[in-house]
Amino acid sequence: MPKPEKPLILVCNDDGIFSNGIKALAEVADEFGDVEIVAPDRQQSAVGHAITVATPLRARAFMIDNRFSGQAVSGTPADSIKLAHNQLLNRKPDLVVSGINHGSNAGINIIYSGTVSAATEGTILGYPSIAFSCTDFEEKADLTGCQEAARKVIGYVLNHGLPKGVTLNVNAPSGPLKGIKWARQANSRYIEEFEGRIDPHNRSYYWMTGKFQLLDDDDQNDISMIEKGYASVTPIQYDLTAYSLLNDLKDIQL
Amino acid sequence: MPKPEKPLILVCNDDGIFSNGIKALAEVADEFGDVEIVAPDRQQSAVGHAITVATPLRARAFMIDNRFSGQAVSGTPADSIKLAHNQLLNRKPDLVVSGINHGSNAGINIIYSGTVSAATEGTILGYPSIAFSCTDFEEKADLTGCQEAARKVIGYVLNHGLPKGVTLNVNAPSGPLKGIKWARQANSRYIEEFEGRIDPHNRSYYWMTGKFQLLDDDDQNDISMIEKGYASVTPIQYDLTAYSLLNDLKDIQL
Repeated sequence: MPKPEKPLILVCNDDGIFSNGIKALAEVADEFGDVEIVAPDRQQSAVGHAITVATPLRARAFMIDNRFSGQAVSGTPADSIKLAHNQLLNRKPDLVVSGINHGSNAGINIIYSGTVSAATEGTILGYPSIAFSCTDFEEKADLTGCQEAARKVIGYVLNHGLPKGVTLNVNAPSGPLKGIKWARQANSRYIEEFEGRIDPHNRSYYWMTGKFQLLDDDDQNDISMIEKGYASVTPIQYDLTAYSLLNDLKDIQL
Repeated sequence: MPKPEKPLILVCNDDGIFSNGIKALAEVADEFGDVEIVAPDRQQSAVGHAITVATPLRARAFMIDNRFSGQAVSGTPADSIKLAHNQLLNRKPDLVVSGINHGSNAGINIIYSGTVSAATEGTILGYPSIAFSCTDFEEKADLTGCQEAARKVIGYVLNHGLPKGVTLNVNAPSGPLKGIKWARQANSRYIEEFEGRIDPHNRSYYWMTGKFQLLDDDDQNDISMIEKGYASVTPIQYDLTAYSLLNDLKDIQL
């Protein structure tokens, strides 16, 4: 009788294969199964769910610390998951994890996040998928709390699975956690500010910056949970239909 | 007493300022108010909700057919809307429209769509916003049906507004319409195929292709409506929380 296989866990991110975050997540995944990393070969933050259709993709093998093997993809996080699924893995993964992102993907950040999109792409392809992010942007951030959350959530999902069409989005503060809480996506936005400058050739250009603004009025949202020291876990879906409104509108003749 | 201003309609897309689709949409918008085009300076299909944070943005003025003035932005559709809102417009728009995209943004396509993301960004910034797409990829596609849908939906939204946090996603077949129907986002996916090739330097690369697969079992979805000759109108939201599942999960201790 063949030895039962350990679960295969596909690890991706949007900060690229050389980030500390992906190594920290691979370490946790390694406690649960066989790890394969397929991730962008460079920083891809804020690419959202971009995919590459106008140019070809390349993948090259790499090792991290002589420990984790993987393939670096010349594309986006969503590209990486599609290519892993279709070409690069020898067997189907049991779980797709993305992160640990250096920077929060709570609230409105989720819309712009390549980290979350990698996990969403895993869900679209039919795999249980989880995104992990730490609020601290620093490369040397203390990811131990986020790793603790990853250990609990990965264990839960490997045991219980996830409903079709649902991805888990996990965010944690840096350092130790008070605990882990379910939460909804915070109502929030950026107040953008564009700093206008003049280049040496006398042409104008703009740098985008922005202040984050929490618009929520209760504390059951992901951002409030993180601020209180908890990791937040938000089930998210890629069916964007606003069903309650659709129900109100459907008798209106256009 | 000052003359009441006509509504200002901000027009964006993801195919770039030189596409036929944006001109077709600007023509319809022009029937309702003052038109300002702020859109990517080049093709940006499948960029999803990407934004540009690592490089600066530029904008340059242009005219289409000596008729519509605008600004071409060196970034993504979402960048274009943010920059228009913050820097480029003299007054706040009353409506944001995006398209007409050359190619469907129904079903799962919505996730990858720059066209839809421009409209979503408009919604995030607080403006009533609508995305328009035609199923025909050809630059010379017959957009008259989609223009007819745009006329009806723009008229409706200028009169009635839209609830906070909701964007309308409109898709139409090419040519004349049977009518316009409310619909939900179809459950659908791509069966990706990557075509592996070897370059002249003997290195492998992959071209992404894919077959679209409709997984829905009733006909109240956007793709079924379009196939029957109707334009579909789907209210969508950027709060991705899977609320019904969150309710089930919230008593589970992680």
